[in-house]
Amino acid sequence: MADINSKLEIGVTTGPIRGSRKVHVGPYNVAMREIDLEPSSGEPPLRVYDTSGPYTDPDVQIDIQAGLAPLRRQWQLDRGDVEEYAPRDVKPEDNGQLGPDRSGGVPPFPTALRRPLRAKAGANLSQMHYARRGIITPEMEYVAARENLGRAIAREASSGGESWGASIPLNVTPEFVRDEVARGRAIIPSNVNHPECEPMAIGRNFLVKINANIGNSAVASDVASEVDKMVWSIRWGADTVMDLSTGRNIHDTREWIIRNSPVPIGTVPIYQALEKVGGVAEDLTWDIFRDTLIEQAEQGVDYFTIHAGVRLPYVPMAAKRVTGIVSRGGSIMAKWCLAHHKESFLYEKFDEITEIMKAYDIAYSLGDGLRPGSIADANDEAQFAELYTLGELTHRAWKSDVQVMIEGPGHVPMHKIKENMEKQLQVCGEAPFYTLGPLVTDIAPGYDHITSGIGAAQIGWYGTAMLCYVTPKEHLGLPDRDDVKVGVVTYKLAAHAADLAKGHPAAQMRDDALSRARFEFRWRDQFNLSLDPDTAEEYHDQTLPAEGAKTAHFCSMCGPKFCSMQISQEVRDFAAKQNQTADGFLAAEKWGADTAAASKAAAEEGMREMSKVYHDKGDNLYLPAEEAK
Amino acid sequence: MADINSKLEIGVTTGPIRGSRKVHVGPYNVAMREIDLEPSSGEPPLRVYDTSGPYTDPDVQIDIQAGLAPLRRQWQLDRGDVEEYAPRDVKPEDNGQLGPDRSGGVPPFPTALRRPLRAKAGANLSQMHYARRGIITPEMEYVAARENLGRAIAREASSGGESWGASIPLNVTPEFVRDEVARGRAIIPSNVNHPECEPMAIGRNFLVKINANIGNSAVASDVASEVDKMVWSIRWGADTVMDLSTGRNIHDTREWIIRNSPVPIGTVPIYQALEKVGGVAEDLTWDIFRDTLIEQAEQGVDYFTIHAGVRLPYVPMAAKRVTGIVSRGGSIMAKWCLAHHKESFLYEKFDEITEIMKAYDIAYSLGDGLRPGSIADANDEAQFAELYTLGELTHRAWKSDVQVMIEGPGHVPMHKIKENMEKQLQVCGEAPFYTLGPLVTDIAPGYDHITSGIGAAQIGWYGTAMLCYVTPKEHLGLPDRDDVKVGVVTYKLAAHAADLAKGHPAAQMRDDALSRARFEFRWRDQFNLSLDPDTAEEYHDQTLPAEGAKTAHFCSMCGPKFCSMQISQEVRDFAAKQNQTADGFLAAEKWGADTAAASKAAAEEGMREMSKVYHDKGDNLYLPAEEAK
Repeated sequence: MADINSKLEIGVTTGPIRGSRKVHVGPYNVAMREIDLEPSSGEPPLRVYDTSGPYTDPDVQIDIQAGLAPLRRQWQLDRGDVEEYAPRDVKPEDNGQLGPDRSGGVPPFPTALRRPLRAKAGANLSQMHYARRGIITPEMEYVAARENLGRAIAREASSGGESWGASIPLNVTPEFVRDEVARGRAIIPSNVNHPECEPMAIGRNFLVKINANIGNSAVASDVASEVDKMVWSIRWGADTVMDLSTGRNIHDTREWIIRNSPVPIGTVPIYQALEKVGGVAEDLTWDIFRDTLIEQAEQGVDYFTIHAGVRLPYVPMAAKRVTGIVSRGGSIMAKWCLAHHKESFLYEKFDEITEIMKAYDIAYSLGDGLRPGSIADANDEAQFAELYTLGELTHRAWKSDVQVMIEGPGHVPMHKIKENMEKQLQVCGEAPFYTLGPLVTDIAPGYDHITSGIGAAQIGWYGTAMLCYVTPKEHLGLPDRDDVKVGVVTYKLAAHAADLAKGHPAAQMRDDALSRARFEFRWRDQFNLSLDPDTAEEYHDQTLPAEGAKTAHFCSMCGPKFCSMQISQEVRDFAAKQNQTADGFLAAEKWGADTAAASKAAAEEGMREMSKVYHDKGDNLYLPAEEAK
Repeated sequence: MADINSKLEIGVTTGPIRGSRKVHVGPYNVAMREIDLEPSSGEPPLRVYDTSGPYTDPDVQIDIQAGLAPLRRQWQLDRGDVEEYAPRDVKPEDNGQLGPDRSGGVPPFPTALRRPLRAKAGANLSQMHYARRGIITPEMEYVAARENLGRAIAREASSGGESWGASIPLNVTPEFVRDEVARGRAIIPSNVNHPECEPMAIGRNFLVKINANIGNSAVASDVASEVDKMVWSIRWGADTVMDLSTGRNIHDTREWIIRNSPVPIGTVPIYQALEKVGGVAEDLTWDIFRDTLIEQAEQGVDYFTIHAGVRLPYVPMAAKRVTGIVSRGGSIMAKWCLAHHKESFLYEKFDEITEIMKAYDIAYSLGDGLRPGSIADANDEAQFAELYTLGELTHRAWKSDVQVMIEGPGHVPMHKIKENMEKQLQVCGEAPFYTLGPLVTDIAPGYDHITSGIGAAQIGWYGTAMLCYVTPKEHLGLPDRDDVKVGVVTYKLAAHAADLAKGHPAAQMRDDALSRARFEFRWRDQFNLSLDPDTAEEYHDQTLPAEGAKTAHFCSMCGPKFCSMQISQEVRDFAAKQNQTADGFLAAEKWGADTAAASKAAAEEGMREMSKVYHDKGDNLYLPAEEAK
């Protein structure tokens, strides 16, 4: 817990993930992770994508009070289109200090006053702007190296896939990254004031990404545990983190998070704006909102959720739903629109917001304020009306070369998921889709990481670029550290399942390495290659804790004398002996194929017979009991 | 823990699931569960399918030493085609008593020696046989009432669905059940010697079912905990339970389980047969296997997994896989085939096995001994060669009116799942598919209930009739009580998601009831309507333990002043006030629709513009950086 009156004590988890080493690749020292396998495997280390930042690098001295090194600062200065300036003053209301029960209490981040950067007059700092002018930035080079991860040697590891129209390259070049960013199909969130961020891309032709939400609220949490959760979530694989704080100390909490985050940070600025007007939606104004955008832009927020698609005429559509409006931002704006009977100021002032986004390179995450909050409300007119408006706004932002992604639902039964993806791709011109789940049923609170993981894997397969995690506490309470980990690992496996199904050329390498380890009883490799080595080993040890069991050629499910893997090894040895020449083996294969074909023919013949029985009875499904005799 | 030398002490969980009452419906007293809602909801109780048996009925005195009441015994006697006879003697090797380290230790089930039933000479007890003769059995009546569950009043609750060719009726009649069983599209597993079983159906036109595996092994578990796990798994929704014991005391453990089980029990007889020959696969004989089938038939096992599709010629196909043969039964048979260089005795003696199945009404669960054990091996020739043989055997069994379901994979990436379902439906004439998962990636040991839950929801949607659960311990250790619950709830939600997506007419009732409770802050209703009320409440209480919070109109995620549901209620009230006449409301709707249409047109225009930019550059995706400027 933080001592709120003196120096903030923040403990975070550091050190390598077990069995792994940090490696750095190429001229930009792109951080990756390598998992060493046992010598008996005869296999090289497996390289995996690494979101954990310097926290897993034993060579880096972590100092939360100082923040991370500004990796990107020089790249930005070198481009010559930025200027330092005196920032806006931090106001008491930035930290929610409006009354006695909201009296701050978090010390400001301790480094000397930083002078923020912004675009020189007339300049546009967005990666999309550079991309469209044909410039390959260091950020794009970094992304290419990061995404390309062992892909060249892994092509043969893919067993096909159905990408639903995506264009996943065999090899990711910097030029490919530039082109994807230029056409709006991918974004590289990279606020000029968040130089600590390791560049990453969100787009359907890159690895599927995941986001973890953290943030305090008026009833729980504090800044130390939020920083800890951020570091903890990226350790297990979160590609971006959203700070959804709504209570007091919003400004300072965010500063601590951003200064220590190697991944892009997203926020929903309307939350803080609402705090500034004491929680009364009707009192929100464009000026207060605009000031909040500048405040957060100067701190380095990489993407803003903006609910500009919640327009006045759509509000009545939501009123008749089972669960109304479940997005906080959406309900705030709906209330504002109704109270003033005016069009949303986010929609009206969209181009002014865009000017701010340009000046810092903040990406839009166009919020789905009218997303369905229940199976009953999925794919309804309110949801799609908003989506069309998000499409319109996407193209307006693109006219200013500002990066955009689109937020998506929510609660959607499986048969309605694909329509969401297809409409989004069509209406938003393939701008990256960023979905929350979706949850495929409403009946399992306590397990909504799973109900939503099912939907997430599917929509990720269909083309969603980033999946926003859901924790076991969804709908019930604020996630703690354990919930964050379960949420991240669940979404990591869903994203990976999507990459596999899309036919990502390198995805299957890890599955195959782990499966070989499993078949050969290399237990330690099996643990280390998994998404969560600690849990895998702990579960194994609950039944077989002895150290010897980690090299045993059996496990607790079947015991030593009953192991299918063991028997299967014997079968393999036997088969090898029986078929020492290739001819012998091929002959056995052909025999097998012929037998299978004969079997198939017999099965089909049986089916025809059965079909005939019913046909003879006049194809009558509901034959009366007497006649059926 | 059991005291193995005296009376067996077995503790099981009894009493109603919180917020629920047991009800009995119709002439056969079909057991169901009703969830009462708070009076403020103005809603009737919600009726849900109930697998938990008498254990959740406070009016029933549970005595594990006596077993459950023989619900079906009189129905069987009334049919007049059975005879009582002196059973086979229990032999020491039935309990694995072959050596000093396997010396039994579990007392036999304490009731006086029961005389088993079997078909009179020439008779056939299978439900399929009755069905094909046009007889509607009490079992079919029971199933119809059970499946029909509130469906009549729930038709309007479904928001469509894609059933992939299933024929789900609006109303389940006994005649519909008979017809589905007659044509082999559903089975009612119901061994004449398991009269304690409450009839249930497995078929693509019924609710998707789930199975829980329990069973000890040579390294862990004991009989008391297995009985406890059985009762625990059906409490949370397991529709059938498989006893996969492989260690000692197999016979007695099974007897305790069956006598106390209100759900069908499945086994893999080859496991016990192998124990009888000291674990040496080559020493298996048809006589030992046949004797084991009779032993288990007399005890009342409702379905047998028989790996008759692992034929000698297919073995070489599996030898070259990444993970070879991962099915225990499959690997045993493969080893036997190779060692003797003979065709599998299960395949050769299939018709003799069928004669046994007929005499007791045991259903085939044709085992997929060559299922893939890794993503790399999915949908390969070994797997499908076996499937064709299973199709052939399905039709052979059907010629004798014996019930059949087909076991399926395993490990399959998402894009290859549908092919499994389509091939199975085609080759096996729509016999019910019963799949393990499938796991959609190999890289998450410790989370394989989730990797497999993703695949299970999808294949359930496509038409799988029963999903075999996977627990978090899969690949790592034996599941304990907590793992069993997590596995069951995960699969229950996957099965329900599949029912929703198929458009099951009553499935959405529960989602809607829970969503209304959520929107109206009826916290207790929200807990009680969920699949796991205890966990839901526990998670809620971790952040807001006060009793008052259960009636509070907010939660810990957003706090009292920031609640989207609350704001949304206000929006609804406001909208209602603004549009007091239907005309006003409709006018607002129309305005919304027009605005959305305009927005859509704008979005599409933007898309065309973007497309033109690329077209003008010659549709060249990989434009060199210089030219792109």
